[in-house]
Amino acid sequence: MIISLKKGTKRREISEVVRKVEEEGLKSEVKAGKTKSIIHVIGDTAKKSEEPYYAFNCVEGVLRVTPRKYRRVSKNNQDDKYLVKVDNFYVGSGKLTLMIGPCALEGEEQIKDSVGLINKIKRTYVDNKPRSNIAGIVMRGGAFKPRTDPNSFQGMKKEGLKYFADMAHSYGIPIVTEVMDTRDVGLVATYADILQIGTRNAQNFNLIEEAGKTGKPVLLKRGMGNSLNEFLGAANYIAKSGNENIILCLRGVKGMQDEVYRFNPDLVDAIELSQRVRTPIAFDPSHSGGDKKYVSDLGRLAVMAGVDALLADVHPYPEIALVDPKQQLTPQMGRKFTKEMNFYKGAYLKGQKQFNKL
Amino acid sequence: MIISLKKGTKRREISEVVRKVEEEGLKSEVKAGKTKSIIHVIGDTAKKSEEPYYAFNCVEGVLRVTPRKYRRVSKNNQDDKYLVKVDNFYVGSGKLTLMIGPCALEGEEQIKDSVGLINKIKRTYVDNKPRSNIAGIVMRGGAFKPRTDPNSFQGMKKEGLKYFADMAHSYGIPIVTEVMDTRDVGLVATYADILQIGTRNAQNFNLIEEAGKTGKPVLLKRGMGNSLNEFLGAANYIAKSGNENIILCLRGVKGMQDEVYRFNPDLVDAIELSQRVRTPIAFDPSHSGGDKKYVSDLGRLAVMAGVDALLADVHPYPEIALVDPKQQLTPQMGRKFTKEMNFYKGAYLKGQKQFNKL
Amino acid sequence: MIISLKKGTKRREISEVVRKVEEEGLKSEVKAGKTKSIIHVIGDTAKKSEEPYYAFNCVEGVLRVTPRKYRRVSKNNQDDKYLVKVDNFYVGSGKLTLMIGPCALEGEEQIKDSVGLINKIKRTYVDNKPRSNIAGIVMRGGAFKPRTDPNSFQGMKKEGLKYFADMAHSYGIPIVTEVMDTRDVGLVATYADILQIGTRNAQNFNLIEEAGKTGKPVLLKRGMGNSLNEFLGAANYIAKSGNENIILCLRGVKGMQDEVYRFNPDLVDAIELSQRVRTPIAFDPSHSGGDKKYVSDLGRLAVMAGVDALLADVHPYPEIALVDPKQQLTPQMGRKFTKEMNFYKGAYLKGQKQFNKL
Amino acid sequence: MIISLKKGTKRREISEVVRKVEEEGLKSEVKAGKTKSIIHVIGDTAKKSEEPYYAFNCVEGVLRVTPRKYRRVSKNNQDDKYLVKVDNFYVGSGKLTLMIGPCALEGEEQIKDSVGLINKIKRTYVDNKPRSNIAGIVMRGGAFKPRTDPNSFQGMKKEGLKYFADMAHSYGIPIVTEVMDTRDVGLVATYADILQIGTRNAQNFNLIEEAGKTGKPVLLKRGMGNSLNEFLGAANYIAKSGNENIILCLRGVKGMQDEVYRFNPDLVDAIELSQRVRTPIAFDPSHSGGDKKYVSDLGRLAVMAGVDALLADVHPYPEIALVDPKQQLTPQMGRKFTKEMNFYKGAYLKGQKQFNKL
Repeated sequence: MIISLKKGTKRREISEVVRKVEEEGLKSEVKAGKTKSIIHVIGDTAKKSEEPYYAFNCVEGVLRVTPRKYRRVSKNNQDDKYLVKVDNFYVGSGKLTLMIGPCALEGEEQIKDSVGLINKIKRTYVDNKPRSNIAGIVMRGGAFKPRTDPNSFQGMKKEGLKYFADMAHSYGIPIVTEVMDTRDVGLVATYADILQIGTRNAQNFNLIEEAGKTGKPVLLKRGMGNSLNEFLGAANYIAKSGNENIILCLRGVKGMQDEVYRFNPDLVDAIELSQRVRTPIAFDPSHSGGDKKYVSDLGRLAVMAGVDALLADVHPYPEIALVDPKQQLTPQMGRKFTKEMNFYKGAYLKGQKQFNKL
Repeated sequence: MIISLKKGTKRREISEVVRKVEEEGLKSEVKAGKTKSIIHVIGDTAKKSEEPYYAFNCVEGVLRVTPRKYRRVSKNNQDDKYLVKVDNFYVGSGKLTLMIGPCALEGEEQIKDSVGLINKIKRTYVDNKPRSNIAGIVMRGGAFKPRTDPNSFQGMKKEGLKYFADMAHSYGIPIVTEVMDTRDVGLVATYADILQIGTRNAQNFNLIEEAGKTGKPVLLKRGMGNSLNEFLGAANYIAKSGNENIILCLRGVKGMQDEVYRFNPDLVDAIELSQRVRTPIAFDPSHSGGDKKYVSDLGRLAVMAGVDALLADVHPYPEIALVDPKQQLTPQMGRKFTKEMNFYKGAYLKGQKQFNKL
Repeated sequence: MIISLKKGTKRREISEVVRKVEEEGLKSEVKAGKTKSIIHVIGDTAKKSEEPYYAFNCVEGVLRVTPRKYRRVSKNNQDDKYLVKVDNFYVGSGKLTLMIGPCALEGEEQIKDSVGLINKIKRTYVDNKPRSNIAGIVMRGGAFKPRTDPNSFQGMKKEGLKYFADMAHSYGIPIVTEVMDTRDVGLVATYADILQIGTRNAQNFNLIEEAGKTGKPVLLKRGMGNSLNEFLGAANYIAKSGNENIILCLRGVKGMQDEVYRFNPDLVDAIELSQRVRTPIAFDPSHSGGDKKYVSDLGRLAVMAGVDALLADVHPYPEIALVDPKQQLTPQMGRKFTKEMNFYKGAYLKGQKQFNKL
Repeated sequence: MIISLKKGTKRREISEVVRKVEEEGLKSEVKAGKTKSIIHVIGDTAKKSEEPYYAFNCVEGVLRVTPRKYRRVSKNNQDDKYLVKVDNFYVGSGKLTLMIGPCALEGEEQIKDSVGLINKIKRTYVDNKPRSNIAGIVMRGGAFKPRTDPNSFQGMKKEGLKYFADMAHSYGIPIVTEVMDTRDVGLVATYADILQIGTRNAQNFNLIEEAGKTGKPVLLKRGMGNSLNEFLGAANYIAKSGNENIILCLRGVKGMQDEVYRFNPDLVDAIELSQRVRTPIAFDPSHSGGDKKYVSDLGRLAVMAGVDALLADVHPYPEIALVDPKQQLTPQMGRKFTKEMNFYKGAYLKGQKQFNKL
C-alpha cells in the first residue's frame, strides 16, 4: 500500500500517519519525492483496508499494490476451485448445471404442471444421457417475490413453497428458491436445496449472513448497480460463517442501456470472476435480457464465457404467467434451450481442452 | 395505453388480447394501421400495469400515454404537498431541515461529544434565530451499519442506539437512524424519531413495508442503481400501510463515474421528483460526493434544486472516525455548512418568490 | 405514431397539431381519452421524425409504434443481407473475416515485419486451408492516429500509409486503415481497401459522408457513448451517397465500468444489430478489453454472437510498441487467436445449422 | 509513479523495466515487498505517460502519485485563472456570460428576428444595467448542423453564417457558431467571434487543433461519453498551438439515464474542473435537459456551481423551429431566464464573498 501525501505536508503530520500504520500491525518507510512525499506500507496488506488513512488531512490518496483479498472467496492459486454439492451432483465440476422453472409459483396446478415439465426435461437430457454435458437440473420457482410495485402479485409464500418442495423432491429434483426476509430463512432452508438471494437484496447483509449460517448452498445474485468488489464483499458475508457453498450469479447490470434489453449482460465479468474466485459462477439470461427472445443467445454466450450454471425461466403456459410473462420460455423453447446449452457446453469444453494445451 | 401488434397478427390473436383488456376492467378499440395494427386501451390506466399484455406472442410493445401513478406518493395537483411532522416542526414546510451527525455511533464518549456539538449548532442557528431558514435539526448517527466488507466495524447496535436516543432527546433533539433487519424494526422504532432505510436496502421490500407499518416517519434512500420509477415503487411499500410520513432521499447513483466522486449526484432528479411527488425530498451530499471537500458545494446545489432536507456527516473528531472518515465534516466545517445552507436557502426562497410570479 | 396531449389542451391547439401532421403528408385521427386526448398519426411514419410535434406546448409526448427506419441500412426481411466485397472474398458471407495487425504503423522495419507476420498467418490458416471457417484476412495498421494526449506519437501519416499499402499489396493482402480528416479522405482511399472511421469520429458526419462518397468499403466504429440509434444514424451518412459497402464495428461502450476492463463489451448489441441491419457486423476485442489477456475470450464471445469480422491488434514486438502496448498480441498469440477463432466459428455455424431447423 | 510487478518476476525482467525508466529521463528505485516487488519512478512524472511500462509482461500495474498534468490548461496555483476576451468584455471575469440564440439559423427572416430579440435582451439587461451580474451577451446560432439523421435539415451553411455575422455585428453583438469540418475552419473564423466544437466532434482532434490555430476563442463541448481526462486531453490540442482562449463547455453525459432527461447534467464536474483548470467553464442547460422546462432550473444550478458562462437556445418562434424545437425558449422565457440568471449569479457571488473569508 502506498500513501501519497499532499504538497507541503509537515513532519509532524507524517509521523501521525506512520503511527497509524504501526497500529494496524504494518511497517512503513517514508520516501521524499520531487514534488511530494509518500509512505510505503509494508506487510500483509491484502486483508487490510485503506480507509483509516483517509481521515488524515495530509493524505491525498492511498494506492493499493496488492489487490484486496476476500477471505475464502478469492482463489489461492490457479487450480483452486470449490465445488458445491447439490443433491447427487456438483455445481462447478466442469459440466453445466441448469436451474430452470417458472419465475413464480402461482398455484397448485401450475406447480404440478411445472414440475412435470422440468422432470421430463431432466429425464430426457440428463438421466438418459450418460454423456451429456449437463451435470444436473435444479428447479427454480419463487414463493416469495420482490415486486417493484406493491400492488403486483406477491407470491404464494409458505404454502406454495411447501407444496413445491414436496412435489419436486418426490421426483428427485432439488429446488432453488428466493428468501427475502431474515425471519423466513429458517423456513426456506427447511424446504430448499439452494437458497437464493435476489438482486434487490444483494447488499442486504443481515439476510445474506443469516442465509449463510444455515450451511445450505446460497445462490447470490449481483446487485443491479454493484461493482465486482461490492459483489465479492457481499459474498464474504456468507463465507464469514464458515459456509463455502456459494454460487455467484451474474444477471446484468444497469448502464448506458439501450432501448433493446433490460440490463447490460455482464458476461465478461464472468470471465474475470473465474480468474479471481474459487466459487462456481452462474448467469441468468432471462432477467438480464428481460425477453424470451434473448434467452437462448445470452445463454450461449454465457456458456462460452465458461459459467458453471444457468438460470432460466421456463413456464408451462407463459401466456397466463403472473410474473414477467415476457421472459418465460414455453415448454418447447425450454427443451430446445436445454439441447442447445448441452451442445455449446460441449463445444466450450472441447475448445478449452484443445487451446489451453498450446 | 396503446398495445402495438406485430406484423401479420391474426384476428384470433387480437381477440385474445382484447379479452385480456376487458378482464382488467378496461375498454379497447382496435385500429388497423398501414403496416401494423394497434389496440387502444381506454379507461383509468394510471394504476394498471402493462405487463400482462407482454405475455402474448403477437404483442410487440405497450406504450403508456398516462404515466404510471404511485398511490399516495404521486401529486394530485401542483399544490399538493405532504408535510412530515418531526418533533415540533415540519419537514417540507418551505424551510430547510438539516439531518447532521456522525456516520456511525462509536462509543459513549463519541456519542456524548457528538450530541454536544449538534446541540450547539441547533442553539446557535435555529433556537436563537427566529428568522432562520432552517426549520429544525435532526441528529443522525448509525447504530446498525451495512458495511461492504464483513470485517469492518459493524456498529454499536441496540446498546448504542439506546444511549444515543436518551442523550439526544435529553437536549430535545430528534434522531434519525438506520434499520437493516425486519427483526429490528420494533426496537429501532422505540428509539428513533425517523427510521432510515439505506441505499443497500432500497429494494428490501419486506423491511420497507415493516418500517412503514410503525407509522413513524421513514427516510427512504434511493438505491444506487435504481431508476426514479423503481424508487417510487419502493416508496409505495411504505404508503401501502397507510403511513404517509415518507421522506425520499437522493444520494447519488452509479453511472459513467469519473475519477472524481463516488456517485453521480442526482440533483436534477430532485427537481423532477418535486414535480411528481407530494412527499418531502432530501439529499445527502456526504455519501454522494464521498469526500468532505464536496459536501458544501453539493449541499448548495441541492438547496438550489429546492430540496426540503439535507443529510450530512459531521463528526467531533473525524481523524479517528471508524466509518467513512474521509467524508466526515469537522465541527468547524459543520458550523460553516449550517450557516451556508441557511444563506442559500434564503436566496432560493427569494428567487422562487420573485420569479414564480412572472 | 401517437401524439399524446397535455391535460386541458384546447380544441384550437389540437387543430394546429393536426395541421402539422397534414403538412408532413400524413393523416390523423383525434381520440379523447378519460384523462387526456391523443392524436393518431396514420401513414408511412417509419421515415418520419417525431421532432416537429414537440414544438407545440400542448404536446406531452410522441410515441412511435413503427420503429425508426434507417434507409438502406435496415433489413427489409429476415434474409436480407448485404455482402461487402474486399479483394477476392466477401465480408458477411457466413465465414469469419479477420482484420489483424499492429495498432499503429511505426517505421519501415516494423511495417515489413508486421506484413511478414500477417502473411504467414494468412498462408497457414486461409490459403492452405480450403475448409477453414475464415473467409479472408485483412491487415490493419494506423497511419493517422487519434491520441487523447496531443504529446503522444501521432502516426507516420502519408509516408507510412504508402509504404504499408505497397508492402501488403505485394503479398496480396488487403488493408484497412483509419482516416481522421475530410482533407485526407482522397489520399487514404487511394491506398486503403477499407476506410476505417474511429470511435472518436463516430459522429463526425462530414468525415463519414466524405468516406462514403469514395465508394470504398467503410468500417464504422460505434462511438464510445452512442446508442444503437445514434450508431445507425451515422451509418446512414455513408448509405446516403449510395455506398452500401458498410461494416458496422462494435468496440465496447462507456457504462458502469468496473475496475477490470476499459469499455463494456457490447456483445448483445451484435445480436440485436444482426436482427435489424443488413450490413456485416464486426467486433474489436482489443479496444473493448484494453488488455491482451481479454482478446481471446472476447473474440470467442463475439464469434458466438455471430459477428462477421473481428479486429485485433497483433504486433511483431509488442514490448516496444508505441501505441497501446498493453493490448497488442504477440506473434505467437496472434497465431493461436486465429486458430481459436476458426474453431469457434465452426462450432457456431454447426450450432446454427442444427438448432435453426428445430 | 509506482510500477508494481507480478509475483515471481525475475531480476532480468526487472532490469529491463528499469532501463525503460531511464530512457524516459527518470530515476528508479526497486523495493522488494512481502508478496511482490515494486519500482519507484522518481522525477517530474506529471507530464510522463504510464503507457510504455504496460508493454512488459512482468508489469501488473502502474500507479500515478502525481496526477496527470495538461499543459497550459491545468492550474498552476489556486488563483491562476485565464480570462478569454470576447468583443469588449471577458469570459471568466467573475460575472456571467450568456450565449443565447436559436439552435439553428433557418433563413434570413428568422435570423433578423433572432438578432432583434437578442439585441433587446442585451440592451435591457446589460447595456442599461451597469450593476448587472452579466458580463456580456454572445449570440449563438448554428450554420453547420451535425444531425444524427442525414435526412434532417443540415443548416444554411456559408450563406447563413455570413448573413448572421453581418446582422449581429451591426448591433455590436459577438457570435459563437459551430465548425464541423477542417475545411471550413478558415471560413468560420472569418465570421465568428468564438468557434464552437460540438459534442459529436469532441475528440475530432484534427478539427480541434485546426480551430486552435486560428487564435480565436474556442468553445469546446465535452463529448457525451467522455471522462474529464479525455475532455482535458482534447482541450490540450487547442493549447498546443499556443492558443489559450479556451472555454470548456459541459453539456451532460450519458449514464444511467432516467426517463426524465436526455443527458446526466455534469454539474459537479463544473466544480471539479474549476479546481483543476485555469480556463473559463460554461454549461449548456438546453442540450443537457433536452426540454425547455428544465432550462431555467439547470441554468440556476450551473450558476450556483460557479460556471462562467451559460449557453441556451432561445428562438423567436419555437413552435416552427427546424431543430430541437422542444428545447427552444420562447422570447418571453428568454427574458425571464436572463433576469433569473442575473439574480442567482448575484446570490452566488455574495455567498462566495461571505463564506470564503471564514
